[in-house]
Amino acid sequence: MTAPEKPAYRVIGTRPVRPDGIDKVTGRAVYGADVRLPGMLRGIVLRSPHAHANIRGIDASRALALPGVKAVITGADLVPPGKTLADVPDLASNLMATTKVYYRGQAVAAVAATSEEIARQAARLIEVDYEVLPAVLDVREAMLPAAPILHAGLRTRGGDPNTQTNIIAHHVMAVGDAEAAMAGADIVTVEGEFKTSMVHQGYIEPHASTATWNPDGQITIWTSTQGSFPARQNTSAVLGHPISKIKVIPTEIGGGFGGKIAIYLEPVAALLARKSGKPVKVQMDRADVFEATGPTPGTSIRAKLGATKDGRIVAAIADMAYETGGYPIATPANYATMVAFSCYDIENLKMDGWDVVVNKPRTQDYRAPSSPAAAFAIEQLVDELSEKLGIDPLALRLKNSAREGTRGPMGMPYRRIGHEECVQAALDSDHYRSPLEGANKGRGVASGFWFNVGLRSSVSVTVQPDGTVSLIEGSTDIGGTRASLAMQLAETIGVAYEDVKPTVVDTDSVGYNDVTAGSRVTFGTGMAVVEAGKNLIKEMSGRLAGAWSVPPEEITFNAGTFSAGDKSMTFKQAAEATVGRGPGLTVSGSVNAGFLQGGGFAHHIVDVEVDPETGKVQVLRYTTVQDAGTAVHPAYVEGQMQGGAAQGIGWALNEEYYYDDNGRMANSTYLDYRIPTTLDVPMIDTIIVEVPNPLHPYGVRGVGEPGIVPPLAAIANAVYRATGVRQHQLPMSPRRILETTDAMKA
Amino acid sequence: MTAPEKPAYRVIGTRPVRPDGIDKVTGRAVYGADVRLPGMLRGIVLRSPHAHANIRGIDASRALALPGVKAVITGADLVPPGKTLADVPDLASNLMATTKVYYRGQAVAAVAATSEEIARQAARLIEVDYEVLPAVLDVREAMLPAAPILHAGLRTRGGDPNTQTNIIAHHVMAVGDAEAAMAGADIVTVEGEFKTSMVHQGYIEPHASTATWNPDGQITIWTSTQGSFPARQNTSAVLGHPISKIKVIPTEIGGGFGGKIAIYLEPVAALLARKSGKPVKVQMDRADVFEATGPTPGTSIRAKLGATKDGRIVAAIADMAYETGGYPIATPANYATMVAFSCYDIENLKMDGWDVVVNKPRTQDYRAPSSPAAAFAIEQLVDELSEKLGIDPLALRLKNSAREGTRGPMGMPYRRIGHEECVQAALDSDHYRSPLEGANKGRGVASGFWFNVGLRSSVSVTVQPDGTVSLIEGSTDIGGTRASLAMQLAETIGVAYEDVKPTVVDTDSVGYNDVTAGSRVTFGTGMAVVEAGKNLIKEMSGRLAGAWSVPPEEITFNAGTFSAGDKSMTFKQAAEATVGRGPGLTVSGSVNAGFLQGGGFAHHIVDVEVDPETGKVQVLRYTTVQDAGTAVHPAYVEGQMQGGAAQGIGWALNEEYYYDDNGRMANSTYLDYRIPTTLDVPMIDTIIVEVPNPLHPYGVRGVGEPGIVPPLAAIANAVYRATGVRQHQLPMSPRRILETTDAMKA
Repeated sequence: MTAPEKPAYRVIGTRPVRPDGIDKVTGRAVYGADVRLPGMLRGIVLRSPHAHANIRGIDASRALALPGVKAVITGADLVPPGKTLADVPDLASNLMATTKVYYRGQAVAAVAATSEEIARQAARLIEVDYEVLPAVLDVREAMLPAAPILHAGLRTRGGDPNTQTNIIAHHVMAVGDAEAAMAGADIVTVEGEFKTSMVHQGYIEPHASTATWNPDGQITIWTSTQGSFPARQNTSAVLGHPISKIKVIPTEIGGGFGGKIAIYLEPVAALLARKSGKPVKVQMDRADVFEATGPTPGTSIRAKLGATKDGRIVAAIADMAYETGGYPIATPANYATMVAFSCYDIENLKMDGWDVVVNKPRTQDYRAPSSPAAAFAIEQLVDELSEKLGIDPLALRLKNSAREGTRGPMGMPYRRIGHEECVQAALDSDHYRSPLEGANKGRGVASGFWFNVGLRSSVSVTVQPDGTVSLIEGSTDIGGTRASLAMQLAETIGVAYEDVKPTVVDTDSVGYNDVTAGSRVTFGTGMAVVEAGKNLIKEMSGRLAGAWSVPPEEITFNAGTFSAGDKSMTFKQAAEATVGRGPGLTVSGSVNAGFLQGGGFAHHIVDVEVDPETGKVQVLRYTTVQDAGTAVHPAYVEGQMQGGAAQGIGWALNEEYYYDDNGRMANSTYLDYRIPTTLDVPMIDTIIVEVPNPLHPYGVRGVGEPGIVPPLAAIANAVYRATGVRQHQLPMSPRRILETTDAMKA
Repeated sequence: MTAPEKPAYRVIGTRPVRPDGIDKVTGRAVYGADVRLPGMLRGIVLRSPHAHANIRGIDASRALALPGVKAVITGADLVPPGKTLADVPDLASNLMATTKVYYRGQAVAAVAATSEEIARQAARLIEVDYEVLPAVLDVREAMLPAAPILHAGLRTRGGDPNTQTNIIAHHVMAVGDAEAAMAGADIVTVEGEFKTSMVHQGYIEPHASTATWNPDGQITIWTSTQGSFPARQNTSAVLGHPISKIKVIPTEIGGGFGGKIAIYLEPVAALLARKSGKPVKVQMDRADVFEATGPTPGTSIRAKLGATKDGRIVAAIADMAYETGGYPIATPANYATMVAFSCYDIENLKMDGWDVVVNKPRTQDYRAPSSPAAAFAIEQLVDELSEKLGIDPLALRLKNSAREGTRGPMGMPYRRIGHEECVQAALDSDHYRSPLEGANKGRGVASGFWFNVGLRSSVSVTVQPDGTVSLIEGSTDIGGTRASLAMQLAETIGVAYEDVKPTVVDTDSVGYNDVTAGSRVTFGTGMAVVEAGKNLIKEMSGRLAGAWSVPPEEITFNAGTFSAGDKSMTFKQAAEATVGRGPGLTVSGSVNAGFLQGGGFAHHIVDVEVDPETGKVQVLRYTTVQDAGTAVHPAYVEGQMQGGAAQGIGWALNEEYYYDDNGRMANSTYLDYRIPTTLDVPMIDTIIVEVPNPLHPYGVRGVGEPGIVPPLAAIANAVYRATGVRQHQLPMSPRRILETTDAMKA
């Protein structure tokens, strides 16, 4: 349970300045909306005012007649050759509705005009003939047979082919005999239903895409995206246009958190560019972002745990229903079954997961998708157990902790993980050892898990004549990966961090890269970097072999120095000697790092004070503990830990999609949708645990996501300790705290 | 003497559409002046009104006081640490004078302001205290001991260390005993002096550079350049700033012809950006381009030839003086010694070359630099010989032709070349076989040589998941090299031309590339492309070996198909199967293609009519014959041949730097400096000869330059045949024709 000793790294583990920092703090970095091209038009998207409606017709003639309007597109522009409006695939109709709208805010048409004002005016002149249908907004209601049906053709995967339904998939995961084990358990928790609301990733930068479409079919798209290659692939699919004719240039990105994996504006801008013959920029406003991008599902989770008297959890049962918004996707509840109990070693498990369409925006990933909502339920039940058993909640977690060999997600046994080390570090922390005193205060703890992914990455490395190297990447840099990748290259080839210059390039200029998501870039693209570094050492050895007249296999490389007999050169000297005077040298590294990378774990400790008059929950102190495998750049690891906690605090206390009865979001501005401010979040203390990941050459483990998993439950547990009332529904806003505690008093 | 049979190529030799064509014809391509950055300032350069002067002081205080002015720089900004104004190296002081100005138009200060108008106004407010010095403008006058001395410290290379001079270097090349052979020759030409004026490359796009300089020292420069890497290197040298902190992004280029190899505005924009803290764009107007960039030298060449009665040239003597403008460079006359007699196999040669400073702009390369002026002399002498011997001028050239094994430039024997095949093709041409009839008409022929260079190139190639490939280049595309390189890659890896997508990227994103010059890109970068293609086949074979479970060495690749036993896949299928489902695949190719690539030869036939009243020479018919080795894209080869001829026609008939007595150029606009228009140039017929270059895998030979060499002499020879008067000075403008033919009549 002691973390293994860390190798002596030279660059890894230091805290250098980020290469893109100056551009970002001086406003020089180009974000999505900063792209300006000569002759560029502005595009505006017309969106559905209804949550559920048939589209009987669209008349754009008045819009087209407006001076300055250059193009209008509708879903009809997405119909594949020889097909009808009804045949447009979901991927396309989600970004331009065809026969139906499934949520308020769904795009139904778009206009390109010489100014934003004219485009807005033109959009208002487009007449859409809607047949409004009843909407369903709650996941459990949507599962009822009498619920309004969104997709006439939808059948539950593997289910009755004759029954219309809103249930996309029913995922079942069973290990051992959970019902029997529950029946035999000494202690069983109260079976509760835990509900979370739809919330948004809340990235500060709205989506923005600019496109040109040349007469030869060459499309260029500048866009704020988590993955330029998947954006190209998806745009290709939507437009039926070959990927080789689409270049995606990723701009800097002002946050994504999973919400900028999907495409929204890219094909819209491209189609408007084709129709108008001009470059077209389309950007969202905040209401568009809330109503028409991909928030995280609202959920309903019913679960219980059973344990022995001495604190061994022997049974866990959960029924987890996840909204997918207006379009069927079969991942949210499936992910829930992969993560809900993954912190624990439990012999008998039964999980039912339900993915369900409702009349809300099509959901997308949000930092450790599906896991926070599951943890909101399960970690409160663990807390309940600890209280009933009279065992310290962290000690109970340690007793039931997952470890190497425990069955993990998808049934794969864990390789070496750092869960126990994290719990122990939390137990040993100054925060946990400091008493919390005073009325209306409570301390909560919770655990969090995210499985992290590997996927595919490619980089190229070019040696410059002065011995510095360019690192050419295709992974969007959201959290400082230019630095974390440059550091791994510097470590591998034995040069200074400052001698590695990373650049994120477009889809034509580097090998394939999957999305920046799943906490995968420092891990997976890092593996590509290490491979490229090794290839570079090999190539350089070959050149030195020629220069030194020795066989290449006699050249060794160690700690940044090539040697053979009495000859030796540092990497930089070797580069100056060979590349400085000879031909250039570029190598690449490409990996498929697999789907899973070995899990990441976080444990949070939070102290709150609940104002009995107003119901406001104030976070007093917050400590996060997380296994980083190897913290490549500890400051960025801490940033990820703090960022996850901050978003979790917002989700726990204030954030929600607030709908009226007609399915209209009532709070689609940052004035009304309350993300945390500095007044809501204390300094978040961080404790990095380093248990190297055996799947990565430097032991790296993704750190971006586990940190958002515990806060919902940790704060709920703290509120419980402060008030004696379990919180079953998010957000724990003042109103809800008052309602639940009043109910308790009554 | 028959060209070898050409291998059956699939892509090479076809005429596909250029990848950058649409962007260029629709105005979407971004040239130097098109770069616009938020908050960008405009820079204006203040230039010397004097051809030769000491700078006693510069007072910019009034300029700096003008509202809107953000920065002023002078030569003082280029002083290396611990040094004085006098220590600024030539490379730097040529672009910002320090203690002296050596030519009118030389930059002495620059201003950055919020608008071009303010910057211009501020530049006028800068007070420069000049001590005007006598100027010397003629190369032979500058060689005289009494001439005004430009550089007090200049000594002739290897000459008297105590004698001040304007002669930079005296190049001597002697083979056999030319004096004795000349004395023994049956026929000796009249020893004449041939003079050419300084002329400009006449690229349509003026220089333009935009720079940012971040507080962390990172400089980014967008510029119209023939070589982003040398531009980076030179900017680094001028600024004393590491290359790894400079990124050069090459824009599209509107012509260069050698004139955009040097840097002018890049460090100026960068220094203004540093001082102002803002992006700064500096662009030239046409007068700046004429007066302050690098035209080709004016020359004076004295030469004679001796031959036997049967037409064997046995002796050649030449004394060749080349201006280098205001700064010492030792290449123009040296190049002249490399090219003057390189079309011929002459046993006894003596050449004296003189590089000489004069008070004109520092010269630069211009398409086959030094060769057209030499040919203007030598090819007229060959014409004189042919007349005196009564041998057809082409037959005389054939008789004395250089061929494989003949001593070529730098004493290197030629590999297989196509000179004889070209002369024969000219003899066989419809043009040469068609009689020219009528008064005042004449037909001239001339030969031209350029040595062509190889140098260093790097490319990367990325396979896309759909089996298309991206070709990532660093060579500026001036003459269609995106296409000619993509074609070579398509040929090598067996895919369609349309499946290769070439992109020219910045200096951080590809390996080192020397300049686009010396007709080297299709040759040298082509070699890098072929190497990359071979690496790609090897890598792909390795992946297929895994998929097919066969040893990689059992996989063969032929005509675009991988095979092993009964298994086979096209390149595209293999790419889809491996890269489409696995990790990305990027390879690179890097070569040092050597200095010389094996020479290129051109032969031109021209018919002219001379108007005896006005002296105007009208070109009636023009045919160019040239050895392309292998014509990768014949249409672009023809374009190069025609372009060279057109520029040569302008140089021959109208172009010149016209100076007043004070060293002021009197014709620095396109109204007064008369480049040829469509009215001056007939359709230029082309005959491509293909004698594959043994130094290139596909036999490629550079084609950009030989075509400008013959026109000066060919037209002079035609004018001689039409008028009976030898032309010893360019341009053969109406005024000069009238003067010389009048003198003849007198």
